[in-house]
Amino acid sequence: MDAYWELHPTLAGDCHYLGKLSAAHLLLHRNTALHWFLLVPETRVLDLTDLPASERAALLDGAAVLGSFLKNKLRYPRVNVGALGLVVPQLHLHVIGRREDDPCWPAPVWGRLSAPVDGEAGYDPLAIEQLRAAILGR
Amino acid sequence: MDAYWELHPTLAGDCHYLGKLSAAHLLLHRNTALHWFLLVPETRVLDLTDLPASERAALLDGAAVLGSFLKNKLRYPRVNVGALGLVVPQLHLHVIGRREDDPCWPAPVWGRLSAPVDGEAGYDPLAIEQLRAAILGR
Repeated sequence: MDAYWELHPTLAGDCHYLGKLSAAHLLLHRNTALHWFLLVPETRVLDLTDLPASERAALLDGAAVLGSFLKNKLRYPRVNVGALGLVVPQLHLHVIGRREDDPCWPAPVWGRLSAPVDGEAGYDPLAIEQLRAAILGR
Repeated sequence: MDAYWELHPTLAGDCHYLGKLSAAHLLLHRNTALHWFLLVPETRVLDLTDLPASERAALLDGAAVLGSFLKNKLRYPRVNVGALGLVVPQLHLHVIGRREDDPCWPAPVWGRLSAPVDGEAGYDPLAIEQLRAAILGR
């Protein structure tokens, strides 16, 4: 852990903070068109392929937990995983539930869905707490 | 390995076949705007998050080899990694070199770059052999 590490303000602004999963911070993107999680490890490495193998494996283990949750609990047939980080240069792994009737299928969601702006609907606080409890058990 | 497994014809058509890396088939996308590799493990699992942990780790180890090659040999400052598979429903992991002057930066390449059509320039055979030798050592 890095005493000076801070979550990038764009990620903090676009997402709800859920807690820690598999040594990474777990975020829920504010866009409600589909369930879109982000895992953000406390590292200064920018690219997934530069992470030490043990940290990469831990991050992917977290992604697998989210993938299982998306498929088995939320009934998404497919899961997208991606580490891009060109707009927000802090390593973050996207884990996104996808279904044929989502607004982007079969294209990626990046650049096509954004956080709701003032007046647009988002998650209600109870739904966020239910997701947190279901994934993190607390 | 699965005796009945076959590379999806869209992947075979869009890419040059380079060989095996870390138990997956290594492909080079035919679009030459940037270096775009795909790793295709012989599995019937569709989503990265559903792979058994050991197979997932092996696949990510291969991605790390490609990431190091893209950065250290080809001088790309950044690397994108993604497993989407909604257009081609066979598990494949993209590992893509990115630089600020590439034609998609900072957006993802998926859906924006395609394989060259008849008459458009592609890789010449020598360049493909040089990439194969540099990555796979054969």
